[in-house]
Amino acid sequence: MTEPRRFRLAACQLGPIQKAESREAVVARLLAMLEQAHGEGATLAVFPELALTTFFPRWYMEDQAEVDGWFERDMPNPPTQPLFDRAKQLGVGFTFGYAELTPEGRHFNTSILVDRQGAIVGKYRKIHLPGHAEYDDARAFQHLEKRYFEPGDFGFPVWRTMGGLMGMCICNDRRWPEAWRVMGLQGVELVMLGYNTPSVNSQKSEEGLEDRLFHNRLSVQAGCYQNATWGVAVAKAGDEDGHPLIGGSLIVDPNGKIVAEAATEADEVLVADIDLDACTFGKTTIFDFARHRRPEHYGRIVNQVGAEPPAR
Amino acid sequence: MTEPRRFRLAACQLGPIQKAESREAVVARLLAMLEQAHGEGATLAVFPELALTTFFPRWYMEDQAEVDGWFERDMPNPPTQPLFDRAKQLGVGFTFGYAELTPEGRHFNTSILVDRQGAIVGKYRKIHLPGHAEYDDARAFQHLEKRYFEPGDFGFPVWRTMGGLMGMCICNDRRWPEAWRVMGLQGVELVMLGYNTPSVNSQKSEEGLEDRLFHNRLSVQAGCYQNATWGVAVAKAGDEDGHPLIGGSLIVDPNGKIVAEAATEADEVLVADIDLDACTFGKTTIFDFARHRRPEHYGRIVNQVGAEPPAR
Repeated sequence: MTEPRRFRLAACQLGPIQKAESREAVVARLLAMLEQAHGEGATLAVFPELALTTFFPRWYMEDQAEVDGWFERDMPNPPTQPLFDRAKQLGVGFTFGYAELTPEGRHFNTSILVDRQGAIVGKYRKIHLPGHAEYDDARAFQHLEKRYFEPGDFGFPVWRTMGGLMGMCICNDRRWPEAWRVMGLQGVELVMLGYNTPSVNSQKSEEGLEDRLFHNRLSVQAGCYQNATWGVAVAKAGDEDGHPLIGGSLIVDPNGKIVAEAATEADEVLVADIDLDACTFGKTTIFDFARHRRPEHYGRIVNQVGAEPPAR
Repeated sequence: MTEPRRFRLAACQLGPIQKAESREAVVARLLAMLEQAHGEGATLAVFPELALTTFFPRWYMEDQAEVDGWFERDMPNPPTQPLFDRAKQLGVGFTFGYAELTPEGRHFNTSILVDRQGAIVGKYRKIHLPGHAEYDDARAFQHLEKRYFEPGDFGFPVWRTMGGLMGMCICNDRRWPEAWRVMGLQGVELVMLGYNTPSVNSQKSEEGLEDRLFHNRLSVQAGCYQNATWGVAVAKAGDEDGHPLIGGSLIVDPNGKIVAEAATEADEVLVADIDLDACTFGKTTIFDFARHRRPEHYGRIVNQVGAEPPAR
């Protein structure tokens, strides 16, 4: 099936999800945004990271059964089935993030991509896990992604679906140019990502909302420009049980320009008209990788992990 | 010798250099800016790419002797010796770019780094050469860097000098996150670069000055933020024989924030106070590469040159 290269995209920003909120209550909100996106003509809807629960890695837990309660063992599962059903009826593709517990007992911060016919066509597991694994009393609050998840094991795949070349990453991945470039090297035309980003740096209290929004924009705009790809970055925003998260969801064109940006920290649907062929100019001129890249000088990027300053 | 981790940096933007202008006349302008930078307390002055001549790759030449006339066979040489002498007297380190012709007859787009004692401590040869090698009548004007230069062969070194870890790149390199990351992986604390960037895209006339300034800022700000380094990007600006170049020289902090930005397209000295220790927070938290990078998923960055989309 040939699907159009031009379509309307919806960034479905979520307001806060409180710890006590049920999956069913959250999915009702996702459904309402899906309906709104469809009503505005969108045929692809992007929901954020960990879109079914509060951002639980802020809570320190030692009881693995309690931890596992935040995870999904199947997808779709009973609470999320209505979202899959309705999107298929409407012919709207979508992506959202959730905590994945595999049959082997492995834990990932995952997002899935569902096409307009309702098939799960892509799965990504977050690679750049921020934060820490043990309780850290030097922080204003905890960020325990390294405790509850293991790093993703799928790399950064790009899927040929819904008329184009689609990629995903999650939250902190967007700050890492390696993530964008690995997708760019597969010709990606639209990168979809969600995030839960605290409004203050837990290790530097003077780094607040404006700085955090700036870094979000900067990372997404640079990733799009430098790979000549569309990008959509979607927040879970607002105050979750006293812990504020930034909003600032945005849709960025292959020139790095912002074409839509959220105005609230609540449930909010942004739409923009996407022309995947707008990637072609950049990919065939200044970012024609085949003509301009020089991998013989990039060896450190894969040959070392940490920084290795020159000897004194 | 222990040199200070805090010092004042000068970005010495050059206005246009016309084709007929002599090296001696240009060096007199560089000397005037060096004096001004020193007068304002700066101890490191950054001059742009190809700082001794007009941006000659816009001219198509077939006579190699004519081409070689734009190159320097020695550095310092008689026209530039006064700059080296005066900087040493003043105790000001500096960097500038020039076209280098080696004893073996090789041609590079080069920049050198000179310390406060007058020693050449670093040399970088531009790796990401933009443009094309043959006359292209589809372009509004020529950009023949791939004709007149070969790609640099030194990689992206970082030097321990003048109190910190110093890196260089040139013009188009700043758009390539690989360049920044290879320096970041050596702990770089200040990236110095110059550029000659036409004010209009030769292949897309509607991409004009504002877009070009935006991409310059975006690339430098992202490179600095994502590697927790200071950066200084210095233009040769203004109208060279009817060909306009952007200004927009800037100094960026390790958070990606602009701390100084040029207001003109003429000779202009910007200064900012640099504290190299301001890099430490980013390098030890969100961009602590040793804790967060995942090179096992970055293989494409070195294993392929061009984009390789998934099979249909």
